[in-house]
Amino acid sequence: MRKALQGLKVIDLTSALNGPFCTMMLADYGADVIKIEPVNGDQCRKWGPIDKKSGESGFYCYVNRNKKGTTLNLKSEKGLQMFYEIVKDADILVENYKGGVTKKLGVDYESVKKVNPTIIYASGSGFGQYGPMSHRPCYDVVAQSMGGMVYLTGFKDTNPVKAGPSIADHVAGIYLTVGILMALYNREKTGQGQLVDVSMVDSIFSLLENAIVNYTVGGFIPERNGNVDQSIAPFDIYECKDGFVALGVGNDRLFEKLCSTIGHEELLEDPRYKTNVLRFENYIPDLQNLIHDWCKDYTKKEIDNIMDKAGIPCGPVLNIKEAIEHPHIQAREMMVHCKHPTAGDQYFQGCVVKLSETPGSVETPAPLLGQHNAEVFGLTEEEIKKLSAEGVI
Amino acid sequence: MRKALQGLKVIDLTSALNGPFCTMMLADYGADVIKIEPVNGDQCRKWGPIDKKSGESGFYCYVNRNKKGTTLNLKSEKGLQMFYEIVKDADILVENYKGGVTKKLGVDYESVKKVNPTIIYASGSGFGQYGPMSHRPCYDVVAQSMGGMVYLTGFKDTNPVKAGPSIADHVAGIYLTVGILMALYNREKTGQGQLVDVSMVDSIFSLLENAIVNYTVGGFIPERNGNVDQSIAPFDIYECKDGFVALGVGNDRLFEKLCSTIGHEELLEDPRYKTNVLRFENYIPDLQNLIHDWCKDYTKKEIDNIMDKAGIPCGPVLNIKEAIEHPHIQAREMMVHCKHPTAGDQYFQGCVVKLSETPGSVETPAPLLGQHNAEVFGLTEEEIKKLSAEGVI
Repeated sequence: MRKALQGLKVIDLTSALNGPFCTMMLADYGADVIKIEPVNGDQCRKWGPIDKKSGESGFYCYVNRNKKGTTLNLKSEKGLQMFYEIVKDADILVENYKGGVTKKLGVDYESVKKVNPTIIYASGSGFGQYGPMSHRPCYDVVAQSMGGMVYLTGFKDTNPVKAGPSIADHVAGIYLTVGILMALYNREKTGQGQLVDVSMVDSIFSLLENAIVNYTVGGFIPERNGNVDQSIAPFDIYECKDGFVALGVGNDRLFEKLCSTIGHEELLEDPRYKTNVLRFENYIPDLQNLIHDWCKDYTKKEIDNIMDKAGIPCGPVLNIKEAIEHPHIQAREMMVHCKHPTAGDQYFQGCVVKLSETPGSVETPAPLLGQHNAEVFGLTEEEIKKLSAEGVI
Repeated sequence: MRKALQGLKVIDLTSALNGPFCTMMLADYGADVIKIEPVNGDQCRKWGPIDKKSGESGFYCYVNRNKKGTTLNLKSEKGLQMFYEIVKDADILVENYKGGVTKKLGVDYESVKKVNPTIIYASGSGFGQYGPMSHRPCYDVVAQSMGGMVYLTGFKDTNPVKAGPSIADHVAGIYLTVGILMALYNREKTGQGQLVDVSMVDSIFSLLENAIVNYTVGGFIPERNGNVDQSIAPFDIYECKDGFVALGVGNDRLFEKLCSTIGHEELLEDPRYKTNVLRFENYIPDLQNLIHDWCKDYTKKEIDNIMDKAGIPCGPVLNIKEAIEHPHIQAREMMVHCKHPTAGDQYFQGCVVKLSETPGSVETPAPLLGQHNAEVFGLTEEEIKKLSAEGVI
């Protein structure tokens, strides 16, 4: 079956998470992604969880599936020469070095453009390629903090908290993919290459939605509010017998359904709860407590079934095992299997974007270090030994 | 200046946030986005913050900038006929109705494909177009809960909490853009249209990163851990004189710098802190408390300056006003200005993806209800009056 990005050659200089997550998407949908690692490997080959049998990193294998793996010492003259040999006819280059490093190595856009004027050169970073902080190192927690996410997350009476997973790395990686694909469409029409620049801080800032207009139009600084919605009630996460469930009662009709479902029709006569605006104003503490108390007598599964029948938006807070095993996640092929030559059977996340005619899929496991050196650089076994001894590959 | 998606015609049936965030990106980069609203308008025209002078919604105006606005009653025969007139030569259709609604309205992919076989038909939804829960309504909080984000967010000793902003809506909107652009590239090569299907639950699940492999490879269920990293220390958010700062001390070299920067060189001799693994194991309570105590004597700005000089990754937790006004956010043009005909000056988020040759920008304000009916449908003033009286537009 044809894949959407079939025929595209991608040179992948990325490491860790932000860049590799972008090139993983390109590879999942058919691009020929050639990962270039330093001679001692991408740093994340050592990141946990490590498979005990083979010593392979589960993290590395997840995010580098479907890619070809090569090694190059870009600081050596020969290594840089070999890089320029393979970048000549590439469609796309992706990198996520700290600001300034590509220039020092001689693999920056200006240099690469000289040998490949139509290349799409994509840079992912914490602070972007320009701006007063572009020289500074960044981690996910810094981007979430400066981008405004941390301030808005957590309960009123506790400290602010970051979204648990590294959402800045991920979201910036998805935006970088958007940028590459936009540039690609433009190149189809004009023949023109260009630089794509995405920063983690900008990416987080773009997720703040009406928190921004609440300040510029509404004139107030929004504060964190736990799981309580900023304008709708009841719209919250409630503790139940064996965990927590989310309930979204977005309008009057749903509130009526909720009241009869939990056996509290008297609420419909209560002047405090006549409209959504009133419900929101009078939600805490009585209405919140009443729903909490009802939930405590049921399990997640029971509440989910009851609310499904009533047509009320609802879902359990799932832990990782529960999410992985959930029939809907399974039916959506969000967990996929892959066979690794040394680590054996592997299971990790599938492809989010479902394309009816050119679907993404996982075809090959993450490469062993330098596995595709011979194929990519066109080398004999003798030449590989020599270049390896010289520290070039 | 040319824009990347110039020349593309997009029919936009979306409402609320998930779909409109996708078509906003398409419009920012030059696509001709024709938004079709029900005759009484997209529900989010009533969502706060509302501009007092004009009654316009700041939320609606942010997420619908650069689009043309039309109205159509798709339940009327004439309305449906007018829809099919303009969809005939469209490149892309985007919708985010609840599962099953497009079919009931007669605007589903199978029906549209009959008059426009090469269209790219993009569907954003809570649970996707297939799977056991695809019929169910969904809100952001439900997707964050079921996708695994909520379970991993918050402090150990408090309830789990969602990421404050609606990240499920946003991230699914960005993925939908990825899907459209991949399908577009494929169509350039093959002439083939297709269906793009993105769900909010899948989108959140894809952000969990090694939480998944920690279970499938590492064999344990990851738990929420506040702002403390899962494997690195010190890597946390600390309270200071006037708020909070994030510090990421990712390796031994940075730890040495930190110790001398905060005047605690004795830590370098402490056997508990010799390596990152040891620092992580022994981080709580002593090392965490010691850094907390140091931070309490300084402001966010002071700590940021001190850490910048020392080369230690650091950033303040910014509230919305601080983030908007931050020189880096400003330099990256992440806040843009727009003049609305009735609401006047508007300020909201700019374009994340920086393209060197075909940058995105905000050119026109969000449409008034039905503002482009005459232009899009080729109607005279008389015809508009008539169709309006008939409840068609």
